[in-house]
Amino acid sequence: MGDIRRLHNERVIYGKESGLRPMDAEQLRENGHKMVDFIADYYKSIENFPVLSQVEPGYLRELLPDSAPNQPESLQQVFDDLQAKILPGVTHWQSPNFFAYYPSNSSTAGFLGEMLSAGLNIVGFSWITSPAATELEMIVLDWLAKLLNLPDDFLSAGNGGGVIQGTASEAVLVVLLAARDRVLRTVGKTALEKLVVYGSDQTHSALQKACQIGGIHPENCKLLKADSSTGYALSPDLLSEAVSHDITNGLIPFFLCANVGTTSSTAVDPLLELGKVTKSNGIWFHVDAAYAGSACVCPEYRHYIDGVEEADSFNMNAHKWFLTNFDCSVLWVKDRNALVQALSTNPVFLKNKASDANMVVDYKDWQVPLGRRFRSLKLWMVLRLYGVENLQRYIRNHIKLAKQFEELVAQDPRFEIVAPRKFALVCFRLLPPHRNEDFSNKLNHNLLDTVNSTGKVYISHTALSGKYTLRLAVGAPLTEERHVNAAWKVIQEKASVLLSEFGMNGVS
Amino acid sequence: MGDIRRLHNERVIYGKESGLRPMDAEQLRENGHKMVDFIADYYKSIENFPVLSQVEPGYLRELLPDSAPNQPESLQQVFDDLQAKILPGVTHWQSPNFFAYYPSNSSTAGFLGEMLSAGLNIVGFSWITSPAATELEMIVLDWLAKLLNLPDDFLSAGNGGGVIQGTASEAVLVVLLAARDRVLRTVGKTALEKLVVYGSDQTHSALQKACQIGGIHPENCKLLKADSSTGYALSPDLLSEAVSHDITNGLIPFFLCANVGTTSSTAVDPLLELGKVTKSNGIWFHVDAAYAGSACVCPEYRHYIDGVEEADSFNMNAHKWFLTNFDCSVLWVKDRNALVQALSTNPVFLKNKASDANMVVDYKDWQVPLGRRFRSLKLWMVLRLYGVENLQRYIRNHIKLAKQFEELVAQDPRFEIVAPRKFALVCFRLLPPHRNEDFSNKLNHNLLDTVNSTGKVYISHTALSGKYTLRLAVGAPLTEERHVNAAWKVIQEKASVLLSEFGMNGVS
Repeated sequence: MGDIRRLHNERVIYGKESGLRPMDAEQLRENGHKMVDFIADYYKSIENFPVLSQVEPGYLRELLPDSAPNQPESLQQVFDDLQAKILPGVTHWQSPNFFAYYPSNSSTAGFLGEMLSAGLNIVGFSWITSPAATELEMIVLDWLAKLLNLPDDFLSAGNGGGVIQGTASEAVLVVLLAARDRVLRTVGKTALEKLVVYGSDQTHSALQKACQIGGIHPENCKLLKADSSTGYALSPDLLSEAVSHDITNGLIPFFLCANVGTTSSTAVDPLLELGKVTKSNGIWFHVDAAYAGSACVCPEYRHYIDGVEEADSFNMNAHKWFLTNFDCSVLWVKDRNALVQALSTNPVFLKNKASDANMVVDYKDWQVPLGRRFRSLKLWMVLRLYGVENLQRYIRNHIKLAKQFEELVAQDPRFEIVAPRKFALVCFRLLPPHRNEDFSNKLNHNLLDTVNSTGKVYISHTALSGKYTLRLAVGAPLTEERHVNAAWKVIQEKASVLLSEFGMNGVS
Repeated sequence: MGDIRRLHNERVIYGKESGLRPMDAEQLRENGHKMVDFIADYYKSIENFPVLSQVEPGYLRELLPDSAPNQPESLQQVFDDLQAKILPGVTHWQSPNFFAYYPSNSSTAGFLGEMLSAGLNIVGFSWITSPAATELEMIVLDWLAKLLNLPDDFLSAGNGGGVIQGTASEAVLVVLLAARDRVLRTVGKTALEKLVVYGSDQTHSALQKACQIGGIHPENCKLLKADSSTGYALSPDLLSEAVSHDITNGLIPFFLCANVGTTSSTAVDPLLELGKVTKSNGIWFHVDAAYAGSACVCPEYRHYIDGVEEADSFNMNAHKWFLTNFDCSVLWVKDRNALVQALSTNPVFLKNKASDANMVVDYKDWQVPLGRRFRSLKLWMVLRLYGVENLQRYIRNHIKLAKQFEELVAQDPRFEIVAPRKFALVCFRLLPPHRNEDFSNKLNHNLLDTVNSTGKVYISHTALSGKYTLRLAVGAPLTEERHVNAAWKVIQEKASVLLSEFGMNGVS
């Protein structure tokens, strides 16, 4: 009887007879410490997991009950399930052997910032709902704008300013809406179907999605061809021709999304020249530097965003390669009123003196959602706890490792580099024995699958001018030279096996 | 020299000569423990802070440097600044004296889930990028759907399923887009300007914002009058008339947002009757139960969502009143393909076997952003660590406290209850001495300001039939009977002062 009671007490540590105490400080402390240890231990053993989860679709349904428990379970039971059931289904983005897509940086500073944000758990939609959340965001984004040497127009002191969005998709959406509504205020709402958006065909699918959401006619989302002749960059001449052509046909060009570091191959569009086209045609000029923006805090890479002074908006994801845990996508605009005019609502239940007097920024009007977390804390902590010089060194180290990998690939005549490396992404492929493109694509597809199913490394792929291309992006915070070398060894080994298999089978 | 070196070592704990080690497990452990203690200590002292921050606009700019530091600073320096500079600018949503807007629940379980999600820091856009993230979300939302006794159509086993959005604004936006594109596939894209959306004028401004974003003609977002005669609920007759009228005029009704628990006054629209109107007119029927949905896990409150079987989509915010730290807005749909058709993109760089074979859910196609955090962890942990019965008890306790507050108000003849209380929100106001509405509004506005500037309590306001109305929402996790009683005492005291001042000044 005593045992049962003790067991009962342990199980219901969260629920006392007097009612649930879900925010008891000592329970939070005790269990918070346990969770810190769980996470630290995870990072100690992270290399033991297959990087890419090897589970089959539907694996978890069989392992978990059909419904929520009526009575509380213990934290130990949750930890046990995390180990046995959840972690096998995790693809380990923080593994030093994660080279797929683009990185999603975690860091101690970013993690501490996330903890603090979750701990305070404020909802900062208007200034008054936590002035520090709005003001720290403005200040820290000014800091970052200065680091990137963005023109003063993007700073909060004038008509511009920065805002943290969840993702680059949301960033491009909100500026597309701002641009859409700006032009519709001039030409009238019924002209929506005439509005035209431009980008290269290397532009992230987020642009197309933003167009879908914003009601842009699908045929008016024009993705202009960019190929190896321009290093997959958008040609200003091509843009200029398209714009003229569309104007002649009675359409209304209003938005360009240019890239600094495309998702496929880190191509960089020529901002300065594109800016001339947008300027003379009254087109909103957005720069998507989601990935490569981080590198531009290093003076030697800053030139990639030369011409940003012509842009209306600029976006980089601090959660990709700047040690700020997901999500933290930073957007700067020159004309914050354009955002506010497209996205503001002013319900009576949120009215307050500071907002009514126009003395403050209410970030709810710069984004799609109403509520928002205190995300500037983590970026602030990353900048302070690491300092600018360390952050620059961090970026440079990854670029150096990618360069070394590129050299390894170049030294193996069975492989080729498919697109020039600019940052820390290497695009490469296995050359087929008998230069047949279809076969080459199958071969590289097979190589990708074989490499990733080892669990030792995770890389991803893209298509460049129809070529199935492997992508290895250095950028996980734990990645060191040995991991890059080991990844190359796995790729070489699996390539040898594949080539010899196909050679033996005589397939070509 | 030795001292300088030691100081240097302490300051650069994150940056060794050999390069930054931003994810060192032992640094994360050591500093994570410090942050847990900081947060636990914050909760121990939370009642010492003014609930509503009392800082002036721009206060923080003067306290922080103009640019990011070149060299790392110590965690202690950050903690010092948090105490001295940030916390004074925080409005303490977790204070037991926070009664404004609706609550934004934190809990130990929710906090642990946030920690874990930040620790793993995966980006779960497609199943393959972390199968556990997608599958746990499907399973846990099935659990919650069963708790709410939602019809089976909303479960993931059939054509429906649940998804975690950031906010109710995003939830209503994505279903509005799904509905928009569904109808446009039938009537043709050029009919966009004819599409009509309905809701009561009590509907959250998120609906209007979703219409703005989706390109719905502003005049076609029809907010039908709801007043005290229906308890601020939408009249099915009014809807039916409006729909018929619009059809007659060549417009195309396509979307209804009904409310279960409006933001202003917790009004509940009659779902069953509204569903008959939407069904016979092919209108997408969305139910916004952002706040009150949580209460419906208690059998005695479940009747408020009777009729949900007629709905196409249903939304509740687990981050409001269900102990799951912000953000966690849960959306269920009956036809997940409608979402996918409106929101999917399929770029080559994200293609993978599981997705191509249609064997899995890729949540990127159910939402606006591409990337997404592992948010189901926190909801899973809340359900497991507390258990259903404790969660029900938690809700009931807040409703009981609100009822007690309502009785206190009713006992004071200087006040009136403005709208019937259904859940844990009480809408009330101070009656003016000389029944003059304008004066009454000013008086209550003043009362709100005076009460909130004490820092002892934070309440908010709304307007109901033109009446400036005070809102006290019980729902913060630390709130006990004594806090509600103390809040009432502050309100009474300040009312007495105001009334006597005005009485003395002879204003009326």
